[in-house]
Amino acid sequence: MQEPTSTRCVQIDLGDRSYPILIAPDLLDHSATFAGLPAATSALIVSNTAVAPLYAQRLHASLQGHYKTVHLVTLPDGEAHKNWQTLNLIFDALLNHGCDRKTVLFALGGGVVGDMTGYAAASYMRGVPFVQVPTTLLSQVDSSVGGKTGINHPLGKNMIGAFYQPLRVVCDLDTLKTLPDRELSAGLAEVIKYGPIADLAFLDWIEANMDRLLARDADALAHAVQRSCEIKAWVVGQDERESGLRAILNFGHTFGHAIEAGMGYGQWLHGEAVGCGMVMAAQLSSELGLVDAAFVQRLRTLIQRAGLPVVGPRLRADDNAGRYLDLMRVDKKADAGEIRFVVIDGPSSASLRGAPDAVVRKVIDACCV
Amino acid sequence: MQEPTSTRCVQIDLGDRSYPILIAPDLLDHSATFAGLPAATSALIVSNTAVAPLYAQRLHASLQGHYKTVHLVTLPDGEAHKNWQTLNLIFDALLNHGCDRKTVLFALGGGVVGDMTGYAAASYMRGVPFVQVPTTLLSQVDSSVGGKTGINHPLGKNMIGAFYQPLRVVCDLDTLKTLPDRELSAGLAEVIKYGPIADLAFLDWIEANMDRLLARDADALAHAVQRSCEIKAWVVGQDERESGLRAILNFGHTFGHAIEAGMGYGQWLHGEAVGCGMVMAAQLSSELGLVDAAFVQRLRTLIQRAGLPVVGPRLRADDNAGRYLDLMRVDKKADAGEIRFVVIDGPSSASLRGAPDAVVRKVIDACCV
Repeated sequence: MQEPTSTRCVQIDLGDRSYPILIAPDLLDHSATFAGLPAATSALIVSNTAVAPLYAQRLHASLQGHYKTVHLVTLPDGEAHKNWQTLNLIFDALLNHGCDRKTVLFALGGGVVGDMTGYAAASYMRGVPFVQVPTTLLSQVDSSVGGKTGINHPLGKNMIGAFYQPLRVVCDLDTLKTLPDRELSAGLAEVIKYGPIADLAFLDWIEANMDRLLARDADALAHAVQRSCEIKAWVVGQDERESGLRAILNFGHTFGHAIEAGMGYGQWLHGEAVGCGMVMAAQLSSELGLVDAAFVQRLRTLIQRAGLPVVGPRLRADDNAGRYLDLMRVDKKADAGEIRFVVIDGPSSASLRGAPDAVVRKVIDACCV
Repeated sequence: MQEPTSTRCVQIDLGDRSYPILIAPDLLDHSATFAGLPAATSALIVSNTAVAPLYAQRLHASLQGHYKTVHLVTLPDGEAHKNWQTLNLIFDALLNHGCDRKTVLFALGGGVVGDMTGYAAASYMRGVPFVQVPTTLLSQVDSSVGGKTGINHPLGKNMIGAFYQPLRVVCDLDTLKTLPDRELSAGLAEVIKYGPIADLAFLDWIEANMDRLLARDADALAHAVQRSCEIKAWVVGQDERESGLRAILNFGHTFGHAIEAGMGYGQWLHGEAVGCGMVMAAQLSSELGLVDAAFVQRLRTLIQRAGLPVVGPRLRADDNAGRYLDLMRVDKKADAGEIRFVVIDGPSSASLRGAPDAVVRKVIDACCV
């Protein structure tokens, strides 16, 4: 079988850890999609209860020519399960099947499956190879690319994990057809993100094509995934371990993580929290005099059109802003207790900086119900 | 305060992950021992219930000049606790104290504390720096050096972990004065190991100085730690991630891991299992025609003089050898279900190879009660 000729390929350039992102419809059913990976006796597909019934058997069929045995482990679905107990199900499967140091893991699902599979791969026998097969828009444009893996801790999101790169990312655009509307919107939050931080022309394009994206037009989705991956590849290629530039990819995430943790993981989808968090981060940029009010309104309108919340939830009846601040102080970007925010400080330019508590409180009060 | 002038220093050469091993008496009480590490606001000492009462306060005092806050977390003692539940105590402490991405972890204790602290450091916020302060002979000569970190899984030892190098290893020889005799012997197993795999002159030296080592003669211990670290540094410098040569450091460990898992972690000390495992691996080398019976006897005598068991435990009433084989098949060195053993195949030369089950059974039957 031939790989479809229309496959777009974005390369992540990280020296001996470089790898391609393949983007096309109809990738999953082709054995050739998975050719050329390191030889191994066995593979383990990691998926969840929502995605496995749709695609696990098809991926299994495509892998069978490459491995003597292909196993499957199905995790419970959702951010609420992104914890050690669920991660252990992957280790149990690996050990019960006698998987060795060459076994390849395949993450089939969204961001939660990808993050947990990646961390399991980083940790099993101190590191086995893995492949990302993202089936949500959010994971295709963001979380499957760049090697951030991990699990949540009750006191903070993604607090335990590793930088660990996949061997390949396979974005089968057809899998987006089965995505619930709510998750499509959540993915669009991370697509929108790339505009203000890196590419205003892309922001213009998203505004002009939002209706096509919401209608799941194949060409529009293909372009959105490709351009998002190109920007992410450019950033990650310069700063794999987030010692500087890479932090701009967290635009909206500091406020967003507070929403996710404060509401309880899984109540808001990650993309929903990021969508709302970008409005708050834009408002903060405005309060700091870095952008004008029209820019904030422009972003708010686009995020709302994507079907995302633009008003923050109240996390505590009294002193809601204090609760946000407490939650944000444990963010990984915090430095010696100072919260650091990604702000927009020019046309398609972002940077990391602190802000006075009083200003942050004003932003939270203005942006929450 | 001045660093003691008699400090021996062995350098681990791994490019930008290089670091020194400091070896001397009286290092712990000197603030200068911990100078020159990356700037950070906070530090976390990780120790256990046996070691913390002896040394945690002294290490705390030496670190206070370097960090605004120095926290301590005390883990339960022993291999039986080298699991996720205990690891989580470290994450809980880090998050409850608001530790950030620059926080330095200090592993104060033996191999279990070092392995768990290193894995916690590798995983917290996807990686924070850490320093090894080994207080047992085994951890000073082996486990604190080389960046192997991890925890056990009920189905196999060290199955979950990371390669993650410390910033520095501080071997305070005075801490060996408080080491129980049984643990001194366990450490000597790893010292003895370096002879047959790499340095027959060192094996001669150990034989000539075993009585001094058992009497904890300071100069003898200093030389044993230094020469062991030199050999380990030489091996790790060539093969950090155990793609080849480094596996020779596991001489005796394949049989040893089976003993530890089969008896239940913590019943036999790791060094005791390795001591006995070396006798079995030497016997296997002899059965394969690689060494003569006199060599096996020489090693058995030395291991016994060190106070270590040289007869393997019965792990199952019937088909004891089958139980050993089952346990060894999940060893990390196994490849596609084939167990791979470190064998001695010449004077101070070791290699990794498979062996027919029948031969391995014969060895187990000959070496067990």
